[in-house]
Amino acid sequence: MELHPIGTVRSPLTDLGAAPKQGDEGAPEATFAIDPKFAPGLEGIEEGDELVVLTWLDRAERAVLSVHPRGDLSRPATGVFATRSPARPNPIGLHRVRVVGVEGAELRVADLEALGGTPVLDVKPVLGEVEER
Amino acid sequence: MELHPIGTVRSPLTDLGAAPKQGDEGAPEATFAIDPKFAPGLEGIEEGDELVVLTWLDRAERAVLSVHPRGDLSRPATGVFATRSPARPNPIGLHRVRVVGVEGAELRVADLEALGGTPVLDVKPVLGEVEER
Repeated sequence: MELHPIGTVRSPLTDLGAAPKQGDEGAPEATFAIDPKFAPGLEGIEEGDELVVLTWLDRAERAVLSVHPRGDLSRPATGVFATRSPARPNPIGLHRVRVVGVEGAELRVADLEALGGTPVLDVKPVLGEVEER
Repeated sequence: MELHPIGTVRSPLTDLGAAPKQGDEGAPEATFAIDPKFAPGLEGIEEGDELVVLTWLDRAERAVLSVHPRGDLSRPATGVFATRSPARPNPIGLHRVRVVGVEGAELRVADLEALGGTPVLDVKPVLGEVEER
């Protein structure tokens, strides 16, 4: 099972310590640069759309199965599957974002907490408002 | 970027044509069998929890970039990233499920539309009610 990145996150965030834990905790606007060969897959995405972006958290630890939630050592360790920690056997990040612009093979989005350079694996519409698409 | 499945879906669903398009459209109860070596990662997951399960849609077509939503040919073709079609470059499925039982390395869940035998990649809590974990 080999992943092929479809693009890369461009963001001023470069430091894990400085990154917000969740996108609604103060993430800056970011851009996804999609590989031009995958650009036809963006057809139909528009400004204002709510998307789930899947990334490969390439700086995460894969051998860890137990963590202190949000890195707070005063909280008891718990299984990684009961947390949103980036540390997990398959470090796939889920990011709910809002599209603020589409320009060719570039998506500008708000509320993204991923680091610059993070590989993008997939983009899906949020179900609910857009369930029928 | 190599994925290592953490487990497998056990479900009576075996046929893509018979599978509901979304879990709340009549999916049966299913079980995830987690590889015992990853079982410590489940610590803290309890009956009633709402989870997002990530699967590898191993029977999906990866070269397709444009589809008719929900397979309905009367609807215009659109980019796969604007749909929830299983066909996409990295066929990762997102399934929101509710835990109905935890027994060792097995999770019983409601509202899962994946086929039996589908590899499981990750399990995460739904944010919101469980945002703090």
